[in-house]
Amino acid sequence: MPAFINNDFVDSKNALLHISDLSIQRGYAIFDFFRTVNGKPLFMEDHLDRFYHSAEKMFLQIDKNREELIFIIRTLIEKSEITEAGIRMMLTGGYSPDGYNITQSNLVITCNPVRISSEEEFEKGIKIITYKYQRTLPHIKSIDYQMAVWLQSLLKEKKAADVLYYNQDSITEFPRSNVFIVTKKGILVTPEENILMGVTRKKILSLAPTIMPVEERNITPDELLNASEVFLTSTTKKIMPVTVIGDKVIGNQAPGDYTRKLYRAFLDAEQLS
Amino acid sequence: MPAFINNDFVDSKNALLHISDLSIQRGYAIFDFFRTVNGKPLFMEDHLDRFYHSAEKMFLQIDKNREELIFIIRTLIEKSEITEAGIRMMLTGGYSPDGYNITQSNLVITCNPVRISSEEEFEKGIKIITYKYQRTLPHIKSIDYQMAVWLQSLLKEKKAADVLYYNQDSITEFPRSNVFIVTKKGILVTPEENILMGVTRKKILSLAPTIMPVEERNITPDELLNASEVFLTSTTKKIMPVTVIGDKVIGNQAPGDYTRKLYRAFLDAEQLS
Repeated sequence: MPAFINNDFVDSKNALLHISDLSIQRGYAIFDFFRTVNGKPLFMEDHLDRFYHSAEKMFLQIDKNREELIFIIRTLIEKSEITEAGIRMMLTGGYSPDGYNITQSNLVITCNPVRISSEEEFEKGIKIITYKYQRTLPHIKSIDYQMAVWLQSLLKEKKAADVLYYNQDSITEFPRSNVFIVTKKGILVTPEENILMGVTRKKILSLAPTIMPVEERNITPDELLNASEVFLTSTTKKIMPVTVIGDKVIGNQAPGDYTRKLYRAFLDAEQLS
Repeated sequence: MPAFINNDFVDSKNALLHISDLSIQRGYAIFDFFRTVNGKPLFMEDHLDRFYHSAEKMFLQIDKNREELIFIIRTLIEKSEITEAGIRMMLTGGYSPDGYNITQSNLVITCNPVRISSEEEFEKGIKIITYKYQRTLPHIKSIDYQMAVWLQSLLKEKKAADVLYYNQDSITEFPRSNVFIVTKKGILVTPEENILMGVTRKKILSLAPTIMPVEERNITPDELLNASEVFLTSTTKKIMPVTVIGDKVIGNQAPGDYTRKLYRAFLDAEQLS
């Protein structure tokens, strides 16, 4: 597969970084990730917006303008010859002489086959658990996934597919997905604070008002457990129903009616984009 | 300078990792760091203990036993031909096919010249600021320094040399150092919860009882500001007096008597080890 590092297209097996890079030394880097549908980037502008936003908030400079990044991305997609690809743009703190302070960033862009959740998986839904944890700089899409990776062994033990974080005020997000609930009154609710602003989340929020009322606000763990429907949203999972939380069954352990309507609306939007 | 990756001694400029490594993808890695005095590793056994401990807690396997690691370290020190070196042992989540789950770790050990704080710097002391933040898995020496690197611009703005974290219960630690205070009654106090157990901290705690009473317990930010002496401890800074916190002067803005006694005791212990 093709990749791009700083100024060069390389084979991805030669995509290497020196160990002095701040991602390796101090876990300091940002990224963004989107996919192609029939070879066409999906919601790329939103992902580029967020990539530049994350870079700015982390004091990192992208030495390519938007047009240059788009050219690189399109070239990678073309070279890869895959129609359903995942594009990962990454920007690190750079090769730091003292292993601590930010220097000239390294830019890495990869293009690989990506596994998208199927309609069969949507029908099954997933079991999740909850865990008290708040990401450090939640609005930034950084590589700060230490807790997420560390929790994998707990997920295996609990036979759960994912973990939903909560803090003292609200449930917040999954490591790689946003959360939505449908209340017993048929209102779609999603947290709005201390989360990463997901691009799929944004699309759902723009599609939902024709289907149901929408609220962005805190959700207590108790309200979550008493929701009539729960689902998560992400680039690779689109909409994924949550049918079990811990040992509590949600709804009738199958995708709810509203979740189904939103899923259909999203699939349509995906084709039209 | 020489380096070691997995099974090979290499020149450090060839110490590269593929971008699929979990340190680069997800900030998932541990490390430890110690130095040599006259070519002899200082407190190496303590650092090896902690390295194995961090690995176990992070579900990472070190495929070398202690004797093998010591052999590699001694070889690096010899090859480097430097007498005052910093040894960094690092263990990552490995080259992860899905960019998320732990696989066979990559082990990287480097040996480089290291800058140790001088007695002149001790005499001057430093200005610090405080910041509310709690590291995610504090007992593990991981590469989770996103907040620390991110705060560098604030430190420059405030003309401060370092930042002391606190949580709702206590001051805790600096990004790379432990904190001690001397109360007005002449008691040495250091936090014991939600911190990394520093090796220099441990040495100070073993040397202090012949000099003064010692307590390990929570310290409120208010108690910190009213301490008669404050200092930090780390491998490269040994003991460094804190003379200003924000805009509050500590003591008479110079190393205190107890700090000075502990510093002398530590310098002696360093030579004897």
